[in-house]
Amino acid sequence: MGRPDAVVSETPATLPDLLTGLATTRAIRRLSLDPIPDDDLSTMLWHATRAPSGTNRQPVRYVVLRDDERGRAAKDVLGRGFRDGWKAKSASAGYEEGSALDPTSRKGRQRAAMEYFVEHFEQFPVVVLVCLVRYREANPYEGSSVYPACQNLLLAARALGYGGVMTGWHGPVEAELREVLGIPDGVAIHATIPLGRPLGHHGPVRRRPLDEVVFDGAWGEPAGWATDPPGTEFAGGPPPS
Amino acid sequence: MGRPDAVVSETPATLPDLLTGLATTRAIRRLSLDPIPDDDLSTMLWHATRAPSGTNRQPVRYVVLRDDERGRAAKDVLGRGFRDGWKAKSASAGYEEGSALDPTSRKGRQRAAMEYFVEHFEQFPVVVLVCLVRYREANPYEGSSVYPACQNLLLAARALGYGGVMTGWHGPVEAELREVLGIPDGVAIHATIPLGRPLGHHGPVRRRPLDEVVFDGAWGEPAGWATDPPGTEFAGGPPPS
Repeated sequence: MGRPDAVVSETPATLPDLLTGLATTRAIRRLSLDPIPDDDLSTMLWHATRAPSGTNRQPVRYVVLRDDERGRAAKDVLGRGFRDGWKAKSASAGYEEGSALDPTSRKGRQRAAMEYFVEHFEQFPVVVLVCLVRYREANPYEGSSVYPACQNLLLAARALGYGGVMTGWHGPVEAELREVLGIPDGVAIHATIPLGRPLGHHGPVRRRPLDEVVFDGAWGEPAGWATDPPGTEFAGGPPPS
Repeated sequence: MGRPDAVVSETPATLPDLLTGLATTRAIRRLSLDPIPDDDLSTMLWHATRAPSGTNRQPVRYVVLRDDERGRAAKDVLGRGFRDGWKAKSASAGYEEGSALDPTSRKGRQRAAMEYFVEHFEQFPVVVLVCLVRYREANPYEGSSVYPACQNLLLAARALGYGGVMTGWHGPVEAELREVLGIPDGVAIHATIPLGRPLGHHGPVRRRPLDEVVFDGAWGEPAGWATDPPGTEFAGGPPPS
């Protein structure tokens, strides 16, 4: 990795406050290969399960892949899926040309992080498959009982000095994955979340300015009171004037 | 509301730490009718927008309903939907018989909170409709770019001493609601989240024990290392032996 920031984060001496945690949890793809102690993993999962679900039905199940035989077999299947996914995406999204070839550019750094991510996938210490035991027909809103828990998992990881990223790249290899893990019919895999120590740093995320995404009283009506705090970095749209 | 805990929470002097925040953010339906200052609302929404989305596409839009004419019109539509929803649910889920009629029982308190919630819906200071600008066909996984932001919104509210609850009860009145608010085709309403000061307290949530929901290495394999910390309260399954 050789970059000056390629140091493994450690457990923070004090926990970040809640707002700082929300503001500085970003997708971490440059994960250390060091194992995660059981206690830390248990703490992360416990906090994931504090998330809400419809009628507190709690239909989420977590299949944790580590370094045992079946965990490794499943990670092998996923690693192939992730590399195929990245190969397709890097071609279609311009990661094989222009500024992506400059390792000092933003796109070049994103490309390097993705390549590290897919090349090392099988070696990451923990991969969590977040599953939904369906209790009604599949529908676009069923994630309301699943993805809050995914976000809590990533936030709890951040609290303990770990990182990860929510992905859906199990899709292309899902049939094989379900067979390896014995996932029953009626259970959907909603996210694949690798976890580990970050190589590098947590930090602020870049988003659209609030005035592009917050409306007041009706669709499209500006919300003048919604303002980004000083120092906010933007991506996906122009900064507010 | 004459109960001893019917006091309005105030902005906490210090922010909770990240893990405490995750562990003590619960659905708040007994909301004060006091207004929410613009700055606090802006802070909550800014932290919502720090959540991840696929390829950082940021397809979420927030329609904020407050006390202006259109906001009130939309809250009127929603209030009817919520009361109809609760009427159907209270009948089908046993809230009109047995222990639900005892105001000192758990189910009786839940019933009272729901009745307060639907009766006062129009008066709550803020209701946020969390919308998805669809960029592909509707599918069961699209919520991965929406519900993490909903959870961040609820967590940021908790940080500032507010509370709320994620609901899908706009469903039965959605056509009318879309017309009042001018929500375009191709935009889905994924959640309706009322916000305000809690009447009563934040606090720990009740969930299934970890050994029911965490599997190690394959579906159904026990994860002996996943343990609930002492004092955890359970709901939805028996406590671990």
